[in-house]
Parts: sequence; structure tokens; C-alpha cells
Amino acid sequence: MVIMMKLNAPEEDIQKVKEKILSKGCKPHTIIGSEKMAIGVTGQTTQLTEGEFLLMSSVEDVYRVSKPYKLVSREMKTEDTVINLNGSTFGGNEIAIIAGPCSVESRQQIFDIAGELKEMGIKFLRAGAYKPRTSPYAFQGLKEKGLEYLADVKKELGMSIVTEAKDTQTLPMISEIADIIQVGARNMQNFSLLEAVGELPNPVLLKRGLAATIEDLLMSAEYILSQGNYNVILCERGIRTFETHTRNTLDLNAVPVIKKHSHLPIFVDPSHGIGIWDKVTPMAMAAIACGADGLIIEVHNHPENALSDGFQSLTPKNFKQLLNKVEQLAPIVDKKVNFYAEQN
Amino acid sequence: MVIMMKLNAPEEDIQKVKEKILSKGCKPHTIIGSEKMAIGVTGQTTQLTEGEFLLMSSVEDVYRVSKPYKLVSREMKTEDTVINLNGSTFGGNEIAIIAGPCSVESRQQIFDIAGELKEMGIKFLRAGAYKPRTSPYAFQGLKEKGLEYLADVKKELGMSIVTEAKDTQTLPMISEIADIIQVGARNMQNFSLLEAVGELPNPVLLKRGLAATIEDLLMSAEYILSQGNYNVILCERGIRTFETHTRNTLDLNAVPVIKKHSHLPIFVDPSHGIGIWDKVTPMAMAAIACGADGLIIEVHNHPENALSDGFQSLTPKNFKQLLNKVEQLAPIVDKKVNFYAEQN
Amino acid sequence: MVIMMKLNAPEEDIQKVKEKILSKGCKPHTIIGSEKMAIGVTGQTTQLTEGEFLLMSSVEDVYRVSKPYKLVSREMKTEDTVINLNGSTFGGNEIAIIAGPCSVESRQQIFDIAGELKEMGIKFLRAGAYKPRTSPYAFQGLKEKGLEYLADVKKELGMSIVTEAKDTQTLPMISEIADIIQVGARNMQNFSLLEAVGELPNPVLLKRGLAATIEDLLMSAEYILSQGNYNVILCERGIRTFETHTRNTLDLNAVPVIKKHSHLPIFVDPSHGIGIWDKVTPMAMAAIACGADGLIIEVHNHPENALSDGFQSLTPKNFKQLLNKVEQLAPIVDKKVNFYAEQN
Amino acid sequence: MVIMMKLNAPEEDIQKVKEKILSKGCKPHTIIGSEKMAIGVTGQTTQLTEGEFLLMSSVEDVYRVSKPYKLVSREMKTEDTVINLNGSTFGGNEIAIIAGPCSVESRQQIFDIAGELKEMGIKFLRAGAYKPRTSPYAFQGLKEKGLEYLADVKKELGMSIVTEAKDTQTLPMISEIADIIQVGARNMQNFSLLEAVGELPNPVLLKRGLAATIEDLLMSAEYILSQGNYNVILCERGIRTFETHTRNTLDLNAVPVIKKHSHLPIFVDPSHGIGIWDKVTPMAMAAIACGADGLIIEVHNHPENALSDGFQSLTPKNFKQLLNKVEQLAPIVDKKVNFYAEQN
Repeated sequence: MVIMMKLNAPEEDIQKVKEKILSKGCKPHTIIGSEKMAIGVTGQTTQLTEGEFLLMSSVEDVYRVSKPYKLVSREMKTEDTVINLNGSTFGGNEIAIIAGPCSVESRQQIFDIAGELKEMGIKFLRAGAYKPRTSPYAFQGLKEKGLEYLADVKKELGMSIVTEAKDTQTLPMISEIADIIQVGARNMQNFSLLEAVGELPNPVLLKRGLAATIEDLLMSAEYILSQGNYNVILCERGIRTFETHTRNTLDLNAVPVIKKHSHLPIFVDPSHGIGIWDKVTPMAMAAIACGADGLIIEVHNHPENALSDGFQSLTPKNFKQLLNKVEQLAPIVDKKVNFYAEQN
Repeated sequence: MVIMMKLNAPEEDIQKVKEKILSKGCKPHTIIGSEKMAIGVTGQTTQLTEGEFLLMSSVEDVYRVSKPYKLVSREMKTEDTVINLNGSTFGGNEIAIIAGPCSVESRQQIFDIAGELKEMGIKFLRAGAYKPRTSPYAFQGLKEKGLEYLADVKKELGMSIVTEAKDTQTLPMISEIADIIQVGARNMQNFSLLEAVGELPNPVLLKRGLAATIEDLLMSAEYILSQGNYNVILCERGIRTFETHTRNTLDLNAVPVIKKHSHLPIFVDPSHGIGIWDKVTPMAMAAIACGADGLIIEVHNHPENALSDGFQSLTPKNFKQLLNKVEQLAPIVDKKVNFYAEQN
Repeated sequence: MVIMMKLNAPEEDIQKVKEKILSKGCKPHTIIGSEKMAIGVTGQTTQLTEGEFLLMSSVEDVYRVSKPYKLVSREMKTEDTVINLNGSTFGGNEIAIIAGPCSVESRQQIFDIAGELKEMGIKFLRAGAYKPRTSPYAFQGLKEKGLEYLADVKKELGMSIVTEAKDTQTLPMISEIADIIQVGARNMQNFSLLEAVGELPNPVLLKRGLAATIEDLLMSAEYILSQGNYNVILCERGIRTFETHTRNTLDLNAVPVIKKHSHLPIFVDPSHGIGIWDKVTPMAMAAIACGADGLIIEVHNHPENALSDGFQSLTPKNFKQLLNKVEQLAPIVDKKVNFYAEQN
Repeated sequence: MVIMMKLNAPEEDIQKVKEKILSKGCKPHTIIGSEKMAIGVTGQTTQLTEGEFLLMSSVEDVYRVSKPYKLVSREMKTEDTVINLNGSTFGGNEIAIIAGPCSVESRQQIFDIAGELKEMGIKFLRAGAYKPRTSPYAFQGLKEKGLEYLADVKKELGMSIVTEAKDTQTLPMISEIADIIQVGARNMQNFSLLEAVGELPNPVLLKRGLAATIEDLLMSAEYILSQGNYNVILCERGIRTFETHTRNTLDLNAVPVIKKHSHLPIFVDPSHGIGIWDKVTPMAMAAIACGADGLIIEVHNHPENALSDGFQSLTPKNFKQLLNKVEQLAPIVDKKVNFYAEQN
């Protein structure tokens, strides 16, 4: 932490700042500039707040010069976190693909789509049973029934399940079925939910909130890790900007930035990110090209009848074309794919 | 809803769009333009989604021309909602002020501040017992102990309590003590929490999320009203923009816009909104000047030692100056104040 | 400037950073922290760039701890700049009002509106002759003819003229007629134009760009002052955010922030800021309430026929009501008005 | 255009709206909904403004349902625009690369960098002679001298030149030397400059502004085309959002969106877009993967001594690695590269 003093700060005020620093067990270091002076602070500065110094006489500004996250940071752990799950890996040199419809709509629907995906070699099925929706009048998911169908898919088709936990009440039921628990963008700072998933053994896919900075996302992951669950997969899914042509602004810049600052795997959801089905494939390709560890893609066999998010869903046919493209792209970014395993 | 067809859309595609509209129990209306044609849709269009039409051949764009909210809208109820609570009113011609520290920090602290506020005629004390914090390492509130102290303040000083519900687990305890339950910005789209407070009798102060549009805020209020709780107070508290000089960008434009579209009371929180204590008073004045029904202000007797948000808190002395200013301003916007009642 | 070194930075890299600092005539100061070390830099740090250090081995981050603007800053000049012009003052304790139509549309139109405004005591007429428009097909202003009509208004009605300079070619003509030259939001970083107005004697009304931070705005003002023209009036007119209910997001937070960091007068344009005529009055009131030195308001006698921006224009009747409100508000913020001079 | 009438709009108000539509030579179409009515408008609606209807009694809202741009739109011209220039093509199936330093700093510097780039097969050199800078105290470019050195590079090395026009005064000189004239982000809505380059024969590289929507960018291109210059290359270079980890938020979503709505080539500038040199390569790869027609990349042989933007510049060595990657990626997106021509 560095504290800038105002021009001509009286010695008395400078002394008070130094005393406060010492009283917190930290150490002040004076830097005399050509016009003003600054006081560097060393020691356990995480216990200090900018505000307490900003409120003191003659203090002009306070700069924090170290990161607020620890467990998720690459300084703490330099090598990439690789999550091994049901024979697949997340975060290593394998590109993992999670695909499926926005919501479970019926037993038939989810089996139809899962069946098509399985044939392509997809091992992780996404589908929501509990849906957070902006409108109270919109379809809210099949709930328990949806979970039941997902359990059936898991048992009968042997696919792994990725599904969203909307709240702590339904979390225990979800954690029984989900191989990966998804925490959605609007819940990224639902700290009670973060703490609850932090106590579970299931890996967590944590989506970036619409107004969340990269640092906010890392702090939310820190909540989960600090409870003991180290298997967190981060997911960029679009932020809110002034642009209205796209549903959200998929911020692919987050991928290389997160790779630098954190050891956790980073996924991309281009379906929500751009929100327009015929632009999902180019954005998915871009995600892999800039270093994403995997993709989560909405696939629906009848997008025009989907109960939610049909407009951003790929048909199985279009999705298969995307997989082909990703397979070609993988070696260029020093990765390999694990779908199509049977055919290749 | 209006569906724009592409240039030279074949008759067959146009027919399919019309049939789909009819199949949903709505009615299509053809509009022939100089270059393209559009199809207006009337009837229960809330059951239609833009996406299902955008996915059809020759459809270029789809525009929804009616609001998605109903219960909160001024069309539904033209007169202002006025909430009467413990002798005060929210949403009428009285400016209501809620004040207090960010968090309950100790029995002594909360009694000291509450005592000073009570002397100024403030009837509603704000203070958090459960605090949602960006960092898992930051002070998370005194929890049950904090609620206990608030209950004591209520009993001993006769003040009404405004405190935040962070999750559904602690909501029952909070609803016993809180005269108004606050739903914070990061929980504005925690739909499970919205539904839960919608089933309670307590009035709710619903804060706008950092990336929430005005429509999002109204939709979240709609969740609460749709469960039967009509006593919702909306609160503008700053959105996230590119500007970094201020903690958030307090969006006062929301005040007159919400007044036009909704009958619910709209409050402003300039403390979080601008986030810099010496700029809270000008923004509070601006809020009243553009039509806000009330203010929620952070006041702390020792801001420099506050365990959270000290930098945006007013001292009781500065807060009293603000009250004086608000009292002078009130008649200009055809309102009156209810603090200082004893002295005046 | 403070340079954070990476964890376990080798002594050799630290030495190179220190040598670079010394080679630029500045002085390094070592701060040893519990984990990492930082190097404070003092002296003429404006000549250093963050980039040149970030590119050195073992440098983690660089923080600039002094402001990049000088002439516009309150540190340089603590008292407010007050511009005296044709018997009015801008930036003192007088609230100045600039009003008029978006564009000069005809001789009749501008004389009609100017006449009504003059009767209300308004001394500064705004109206564009050269209009920057997003579309090449939109009305671009009456150009020379428009300037001619403005010159006539000036001569015949004795009003002072505020009109926009769109480029350096037409600037000489504009500077002959304009009492205040307006630089529009889209030209806020047209540095050639800023330098050109900086060489003129006319006061300049500099509008904040849609994506400009407060610091960007102050840096653009610095361009003008650095050429010798110290009579700059800053103007907040709305920034671009994700909110779509309003044309722009009028950022009133900028008013108290600018007041603190700069000595220049700060105006507010609520017409462009919120962009909806029936919400201009509340936002204008809010602007004055939070400390703005004046307002620039669009007024049109037939908004429904205006060739540009009719939807955000007040009628003379509504504008007069706003003036009445502002007159009542002025003493509460320790200011006075200079319109209505004849009547009062 | 569709005009929504308010609930229970009186017949008289409806008539007035229809008459206004007819008076402008357009045709009204009534759509009776279950609660409200709407009026569709057909004909030359570009002459109507939303505002003039919004100001009429009983009008609730107005929606424009056709695009405001014409010449740049894919409806007008379905096939891609391909610009042939000095043996290279922009916008076809060839990936074009423009590279070079931010600024011309000296004769030696520009020749050194150009020489290295030429060896790699790069045909278009970028470098600024006139630099728009946020601060009046920053290096503003070598100006005429810089142009002179660029002319020498052109003559002696046979490279094509891409350089920025900062204003209309220096445009004639620039147009003599520049093979492609760059219009920078801060000048994207400098309409006088757009008109001026629209009258020149040189192709134009038009960068998206920091707060410009995709529609704004297309409208600015429309300015240039409407003056007769059809050789416009659009360029995404990052928008301004709340994220502070990156210099800007490179919005790659714009690439597939623009490809759909316009026939013009779309380039990406990842150097300014993300602003951090070691993340330029992943973002450049992502740009090509999502369909960009080419890249503009900052390359400097001594980034640590660059007079501007050193921190976002690649060294020739890193740039060569990027070229290798792009070469591998090209066939996957059905494109080919034209650098390395000699070697391959």
C-alpha cells in the first residue's frame, strides 16, 4: 500500500499516518518526491483499508499494490490446475466440451439431445432443471422432475451432468446428481451459495457476472477455494456494455488475462456470450484460439420450439460442424480434443 | 410484437410465420412497406418469444412493443403506492430518511449512532448484521449477535429497523426484527430470495444491481409483487460504468424514468452511489431535487475506524447539515420532511 | 510512480530498474515488504511511462501516483475560475443559463425563440449552425446562413451567442460571431480543434465525450489551457452505458468530483444527458442541487417540428417553469440567478 | 416504423397521428391489439423522426424497424467488397497484415523495423507521423519529418504505407504518401474528416470509437461511401467498458456481426484492443478464428524505448511467431496468407 500525502502536508499529519500504520503492525517507509511525499506501507496490509487512511488529514490518495486474492492466484501455485473427472480433464492440454439444451423440457427432449451428443463423443451434458429467469412469468424449469430425467440420462447413457444450482435450498439435491455444479452469472456474488458449494466435493463451473470485473470473478472463486473446494472452473459468458447488436459482449480478453493471473481452468460460453446462434461458431473458435480450456455450448434439436434461449442454440448438425472445426484448431494451440474418441 | 420479414421473402415463408402466430392463439396483421413487409402480432404476445420467430426462414428481426412487467407498472395502477409504516410514509409527499452505519459492529457502536440519529428525528435505522462482501477475508458482519443488538435498539430506542437479508436461510430471523427488509444490489436477481421476501408481510427495499437496467429492476420487483407482497421500495444505488473516479455511477436519471413507468416509491443511496463521503451530500440533494421519495445514507460516528465502508460514511455532524439542506429543499419539490418533528 | 517487483525478483533485475530510473534523472526508493519489494520513484516522473518499466524483467506492476493534468488542476490554482462575459459570470456564485434550439432552422424560428428567451431574462442563446450528425442523410445545419441569422440576433436583440465549432475550417467564421465556442462531445478528443480554440480569445464550452472519463475531460481542457486560453467551461452531457431507457446516462457525479479536482466552471446539459423532454426539468434541478455552475438547455417553440432533437426540447412555457424552480433552488446552494433581472 | 398508442387513446389522437404520417407521404396501417393499438408506417420512413411522434398526444412509444445505413449494408450489395491494392487484397480470402510501430520516431528506427517486416513478407507498414494523444505534453509525432521518412521507406523498400490522418489540414499531405489512410478511434465521428477522406481516392481504414456501437461505426463508414469513396476497411480496436485489467475491451463479437450486416472488410487491432503485449498474440489468433479479414499489429524493435505504446508492441521475433501461427490457422477458416510469399 502506498499513501500519497497532499502538497505541503504538515509534519503532524504525516506523523499521525505513520503512527496509524505502526498501530496496525505494519511499517511505514517515507518517499520524498520533488513536490509531494508518499508513505509506502509494508507488512500485513490486507488488514488495512484504503478508507481509513483517506479519511485522515492531508492524505490525498491511497493505492493498493498487491492483489486481494491468494488461493486462486498463480503466485500461490504456478502450475495449471487440472481437474480429472470421469476420464476427462479440465485445464490441461485437452479441450473439454460441455453441451446440451438450456433447460430440460421433457424426458423425450433430453434423451433425444443427449443421445445425439453422445454419438459425437460428448461426455458432459449441460441442461438446467432450475432456471433463474428475469421474468417471474417465464418458464422456470421442470425442477425436481428435471433432475430426475438428468439422473436417468446419467444412468442410461453414461453421460456426466453439468447443471445449475440456483439456491442453497435445492443445492443438496443437485449435488447428488451433478458431476459439475454450475453457478450462474446472476449468482456469481451470491456469497452464501458460493460458501455452500465450497463445502461440497463436486467441481464447480463459476460463470462471470454481467458487471463483474475479472478481479471480482477471481474473488468469487476465492470464496469457494477458501471453503476447501479447489476444483473450480471459471467461465467467461459475456459482460454488459453499451452495444445492443449482441445479447452480451463476450469478453475473450478475459481468457489470456485469467491464464496469467490464476491457475484455474477458464471456459467460454459463446452461446450466452454473443446470444445469436449463427455467430456462436465463430466465437467458439475464437475462444479456443485465444487459449480457453474448453467450451460450454447450447445445443437443441428443435431450437424454434425451445422453452428458453432457443435463439442462441445450435442444432446438433451445426454443433457437429463446430466440433470438426475445433478438432482442426486444437493442435495449433498445442491442445487435443477428447470427443470423436470412438471414430478417431 | 412486430416481425420484420427479409427483402423478397417468399410467400411460403410469410405463410409459415402467420400460421405460427395463429397456432399460439395470436393474430397476424400484414404491413406492406415500400421495400419489405412486416407482420404485426396482437393478442397474448407474452407467450411468444423473439427467438422462435428469429429462427424462421426470411424473418429479419423481431420487435417487442409492450412492457414485460405488469403489477409494478403505472398502467396497471396510475396512482403512487404509498407505504404507511410505524407512523411514517414512503412514496407520498413525505421525504423519508433511512440512516445508520454500514454494519452493526458492537452493541456500543450501534446504540451510540442510533442515539444521535434519534435526536435528529430519524425514525429508520439501517445497519447490516449479515454483510455480503466481495472478499471472503473481509468482515462479514456480527450475524445473530448483530440482529440481537438491532432488536435491542428497536425495543429501547423505539427506532424502526432496516437490515439486509443476504440469503433465504437467515431470512426468517431477519423478518422478525426488520421493519423493512433490504435486498442488496448483488442479490437483485437472486430470484429465490425475491420469491421468499415476496411471501413475507415486511416491506422490502430492493436495490438496483450494478449491471441492471431499469427494466431488470422493475422485473425483479415484479417477482416480489407476484408473490403477494406489494410493499416494495425501489432503490437506485449506482451502476457500473467505465468511470473510475467514483466507486459507482449513481444514475439519477433512473428516478424520473421509474416515476413515469412505475407506481412504486423510489429511493436513492448516494453513499454507495458515489462512494466518497464528501460528495454524498451534493448527490443526496440532487436525488431529492429530481424527485426521489427518500434517501438511505450511511452515517458512522467514527468513519475512520468503521469495519466496512467508512470512506463513504457521513459523521453525525455532516449528516445533520445534510438534513438541514434537505429540509430547505423539500418545499421546492412539493414535499415535506418528517425528521426534526420534535423541534419544529 | 511506484514500481512493484515480482516475488523473488533477482538483485540484478532490481538494479536495472534503479539504473533506468536514475538515467531519466529521477530517484529510486526501495520499500521492502513482507513478501515483495517495491521501488518508489520521485522527481520529474511525467517523463516516464508505465510501459517502459512493465517491459523490464521482474517488474510486476507500475502505479502512477500523481495526476497527469496541471493547469486545470485545483492544486495549481486553488480558487475557482470565474469568467466574466458581457455582464454575466460563469463559475462564481451566479447560476448562468444558456438556452435555445438545437439548430438554427430559419431566420423566423431563431428570432421567435430568442425573443421569448430574452423576455425571460436569458442572456446567452445556444443554436447550432454547423451540426455534427451521426447520419450523413440527416439535417446538417444551415451553415453560413445559420451563422448570419445568429449575428442578426446578436445585433438586434443584444443576446450573446453560444454555437458549436465542428471543425477547424469553419472555426474562424464561428469565432467572429460566437461569444462562447462550443466543442461538442464527439469532438472532445479532436486535438487539432482543441489546439485551435486554445489559440482564440473566445471562452470555450467543452462537452464531455460519451466514453470520456473525468480525467480525459480534464486532459482535453488542459490542451486548450496549454495554448493560452484559460476561459474553459466544462460541461457534463451524459455518458454511454448499458441503460437504454434514457438516451445517455447523465453523470451528475462528475459535478462534485470536478469541483474538487479542478478550478474550472462545470455546466450540465440535461437535454442531451437524459434525452427525454419531460425529464429534463428534474435533471436540471438535480444538476443545480449538486453544485453545477450553470445549465445549457434546449428550448424550441415547436418541438414536434424541430429539424433535430425535438424530443429533448422544452417549450418556452415549460422552460419558464424550470427557471422558476431554479430561482427557488439557488439560495439553498448559496447561489443566485441572473435571469428575470428586469422583474426582480 | 411502428407507433404504439397508449391504452384507451382517443380516436381524435389516433387520427392526428395518421394525418401526420400521410402528410409526410407515408402510409399508416392500424394494428388492433388485445389492449392497445399500434400504427405501422410504410414508405420513405427515413424522413420521419421518432421524436416528432413521441411528442404527440396518446403516443406511447415509437420503434424504427429498418436500418439507417444503406450503402454499407449487405442488403444493398450482397457480395463482399474486395479491395485490390498494390498486389494485395483486403476483404477476400486472403488474410492481410499491416504491421509497424505506433509512431515514426527517427529515420533509423523506421527503416530498421520496416526492413525486418519486409523480410517476413509484410507488405503494409503502419506508423504514425501525426499522433493524437490524450495529453498535450506527450510526444505528438515527428509530423512532416515523419511523413518524409515514410515516403523514403516507400521508395527505397517498396512497402505500402498506412498512416493516420488526424485532421483535415494535414490530410492532403498524408493522402500523397499513404496507400491507406487511417482514421483513428477518437476521430470516428469527426464528420468533417470523414467527408474529406470520402472525396479522396485512397482506401480508408476506419477504426471503431471507444463508445461507438456497431451501428455508429457503419454510419461513419456510410459518410465516407456517400462521398464516393467505396474503399473502406472497418477496424475493431476495443471499446470502453468497466473492466480495468485490459486497456480496452477488444469486442470480437463485432466481427461476425459486421460480416452479416455489411459487405465491407473488417480488420482487428489487438494491440490497442487489449493493450498488453503478451496477450496480443492470443487475441490476434482469436480475431482470425472468428472471421476477421486481417490484422493491424504494433511491432517495435525496442518496445522498452518506444516513444508511445511500447507496452502493447510485439518485438519482430514475437511477431514472427504470430505470423507462423496465423499461417497455420488460415486454412481452417478457408483463407490463405500473403506474407512469407518468397519463402513458401
